[in-house]
Amino acid sequence: MSLNASATQIVEQMQRDAASLRITSSKGPLGETLIDAGAKCIGSIEAGLQMARAAMGGLGTITTGMDRSTPLWPLTLEVRSSQPVLACLAAQYAGWSLSSGDYFAMGSGPARALARVEPLFETLGYREQAENGVLILETSKPPVEAVVRKVADATGLAPDHLAFIYAPTQSLAGTAQIVARVLEVALHKANDLKFPLDNIIDGAASAPLPAPHPDFLTAMGRTNDAIIYGSLVQLFVKGPANEARRLAEKLPSATSRDHGRPFAEIFKAFKGDFYAIDPLLFSPAEAIVTAIDTGETFRTGTRHMAMLEASLG
Amino acid sequence: MSLNASATQIVEQMQRDAASLRITSSKGPLGETLIDAGAKCIGSIEAGLQMARAAMGGLGTITTGMDRSTPLWPLTLEVRSSQPVLACLAAQYAGWSLSSGDYFAMGSGPARALARVEPLFETLGYREQAENGVLILETSKPPVEAVVRKVADATGLAPDHLAFIYAPTQSLAGTAQIVARVLEVALHKANDLKFPLDNIIDGAASAPLPAPHPDFLTAMGRTNDAIIYGSLVQLFVKGPANEARRLAEKLPSATSRDHGRPFAEIFKAFKGDFYAIDPLLFSPAEAIVTAIDTGETFRTGTRHMAMLEASLG
Amino acid sequence: MSLNASATQIVEQMQRDAASLRITSSKGPLGETLIDAGAKCIGSIEAGLQMARAAMGGLGTITTGMDRSTPLWPLTLEVRSSQPVLACLAAQYAGWSLSSGDYFAMGSGPARALARVEPLFETLGYREQAENGVLILETSKPPVEAVVRKVADATGLAPDHLAFIYAPTQSLAGTAQIVARVLEVALHKANDLKFPLDNIIDGAASAPLPAPHPDFLTAMGRTNDAIIYGSLVQLFVKGPANEARRLAEKLPSATSRDHGRPFAEIFKAFKGDFYAIDPLLFSPAEAIVTAIDTGETFRTGTRHMAMLEASLG
Repeated sequence: MSLNASATQIVEQMQRDAASLRITSSKGPLGETLIDAGAKCIGSIEAGLQMARAAMGGLGTITTGMDRSTPLWPLTLEVRSSQPVLACLAAQYAGWSLSSGDYFAMGSGPARALARVEPLFETLGYREQAENGVLILETSKPPVEAVVRKVADATGLAPDHLAFIYAPTQSLAGTAQIVARVLEVALHKANDLKFPLDNIIDGAASAPLPAPHPDFLTAMGRTNDAIIYGSLVQLFVKGPANEARRLAEKLPSATSRDHGRPFAEIFKAFKGDFYAIDPLLFSPAEAIVTAIDTGETFRTGTRHMAMLEASLG
Repeated sequence: MSLNASATQIVEQMQRDAASLRITSSKGPLGETLIDAGAKCIGSIEAGLQMARAAMGGLGTITTGMDRSTPLWPLTLEVRSSQPVLACLAAQYAGWSLSSGDYFAMGSGPARALARVEPLFETLGYREQAENGVLILETSKPPVEAVVRKVADATGLAPDHLAFIYAPTQSLAGTAQIVARVLEVALHKANDLKFPLDNIIDGAASAPLPAPHPDFLTAMGRTNDAIIYGSLVQLFVKGPANEARRLAEKLPSATSRDHGRPFAEIFKAFKGDFYAIDPLLFSPAEAIVTAIDTGETFRTGTRHMAMLEASLG
Repeated sequence: MSLNASATQIVEQMQRDAASLRITSSKGPLGETLIDAGAKCIGSIEAGLQMARAAMGGLGTITTGMDRSTPLWPLTLEVRSSQPVLACLAAQYAGWSLSSGDYFAMGSGPARALARVEPLFETLGYREQAENGVLILETSKPPVEAVVRKVADATGLAPDHLAFIYAPTQSLAGTAQIVARVLEVALHKANDLKFPLDNIIDGAASAPLPAPHPDFLTAMGRTNDAIIYGSLVQLFVKGPANEARRLAEKLPSATSRDHGRPFAEIFKAFKGDFYAIDPLLFSPAEAIVTAIDTGETFRTGTRHMAMLEASLG
């Protein structure tokens, strides 16, 4: 099992399908592969799904369907993984802060599991060796040379063995790949809540796919609100039922201090200080936690249609 | 990107799976490949999905699901394409009239983009070169020699580089591949409405799968009604929001003069003169148009359950 | 078309993905391949889906989706096959009783079509020759040597050409692969009702995926109740409409004498004598039968939410 090898296969497929995905693939100055999925090219929903599959290291099943239970946004992303900790936390979580000068982007994807520079990897036992690394960037700009070098150094891979897929939040692909983090937010919150990650063994989730918006703040608000107010996550966990129950009780976004307003409004209220927002807000609207050792299931939270309407347009 | 190359791969897969798809593959007198998906063989829903994938030149994702929102016909086709103009108009639209003597069939599929004999191709910039061509025919009879020659001449391909997949409207495969045009009808109507095709960049749609019917008129009525009265289409478009809004306003079938009666009844009222029927009738029941440049979404139309019940059986 | 060859390909894919599926593959004392998908390893839902695909000899499409119409168990399995008789009866039905000493397991999967030891194969015309055979066992224990020899003798294959995939009912994979029999129960009941199998040509079904339970009886109860009280099946059949209508009338579980109590309670009432339970109970909650020769569709039965709640947890 190599998340980067699987992601590399997805990158190669994206390159072969570049014309139909409306993306471009090029080589950067250090030989790194640069896949623009929505910055200077228009991209596509399909490109976003492929980005998300790469971001999950090939360990997630990501499909679309028409779900009439959110009648204004029937087009819905469904994400399932039988390796949710690896797919979501070792790979998909946008946890690697990459900056140099004016350049800033959060890195997502399995190259994070090679670099292991984030504190999260102290909790995750997983490490892998790979010949190639794949990183996803939520940005409109390709990584600058200093960032490519930083990733090369941290992963131990030469730049020409690195692939960066990037798309801004405002693009079709960006919107899709961000909302595809619907399962990941539950995993990440479970970790924040100190739930033992080794006990989370399977998961499935869905969230409506909002329309992209040209304004960054609005686009970011929509992708967050699709998850915070419109998503459903089911986790299958080992261990005592009371731990599963406690996880379920705390998992829904409604348990957060900042729940109840569209994300963009919250962001403005905190004057754009992302880190002032309650991290527990980033979580599913509805949660189902099944304790497989006892066969019990705990259900909490509910979708917030009014908030979806206020945000998703 | 070659729609015919992708469709040829699908044809080859259909040949390998002929027994399980309950279809037959043979060579015609001029060396052309003939795939009977429902005329002398019984075929299958799966064969219809494969036909539809070939018809879209490999650029569509076509799946089935159980959608309880149409409780009498829960089995539903879902179609998505991030290249809707090419998949639906350059390939899937049944726009090539092929007749010789008694033989008549409308040709669908990517070989149309090689022949480019239809006026529609004046609007579509797309052209492709391919070693093999694939055409789908909604008929119970394989193409006669004169038709095969006509296709060979128009595409510039020798007959032994042409594959024809055919199934009558009354068959399982025919029903499935026709209802799989649910996204295409929206694209075609957008073109009729002079909406700039280059601005349509992504799309998704669903429609219930009706039961096939042995009577041609009834079968044709059901497949049309599944789309006209039972479908949902979402298009993602570039350009000004007012153009997107206008498209949404005009897209639903309810805007047509002939909306409100089962298709078979309309067809009879016009004494079987297909071209007397308002072409704007062929369109989704519900339409969602998202203007990605402004982030606005416009929703119009509604499904017509009574009409579905009157038609779909 | 070889169901065992297709299943063997799935087995090989499972072996390559063993780590991510959380399963183990080993060789037994006679050289047979042993895949533990949930006994000594924890397994996964994905492993259960792969087991089910192997069990259907590669002739079934099995996916998951979120279906809000069963709000407590939105995670739902969808199964479709355009070869339902072969996929479900020649392969997936758990009809081969394999015992030796203390060991007992019901064998499912395409190796049954090589052995043809069950009376059911007198009705099924299908036989196949294959180099490798695949059998699925609903048990926590690998087959003992005598059972491996029995399978080898009956299939005419050396043990090192046999693969056994096993998982107990209580596991994630076991639960998933058992509920994936949702289409199969309808086929099997159709056969019990003497409906001519050759006339069943296509089918689709769905059922909620219950939480696994560590107690065998409860786990078995849940998987059965998910189908008996929560499933929907549509069959497409040839032949007279009155035969289709009669099939529809008799297909739902509500027609059984034993319908109306959770399965575990019925099982206990019959003191664990499985064969005392009305075999007609094992059938879909809701049935739709489409007679393709006349275009008529017959709908019967309904889901029983209270019973699902009483059983599925």
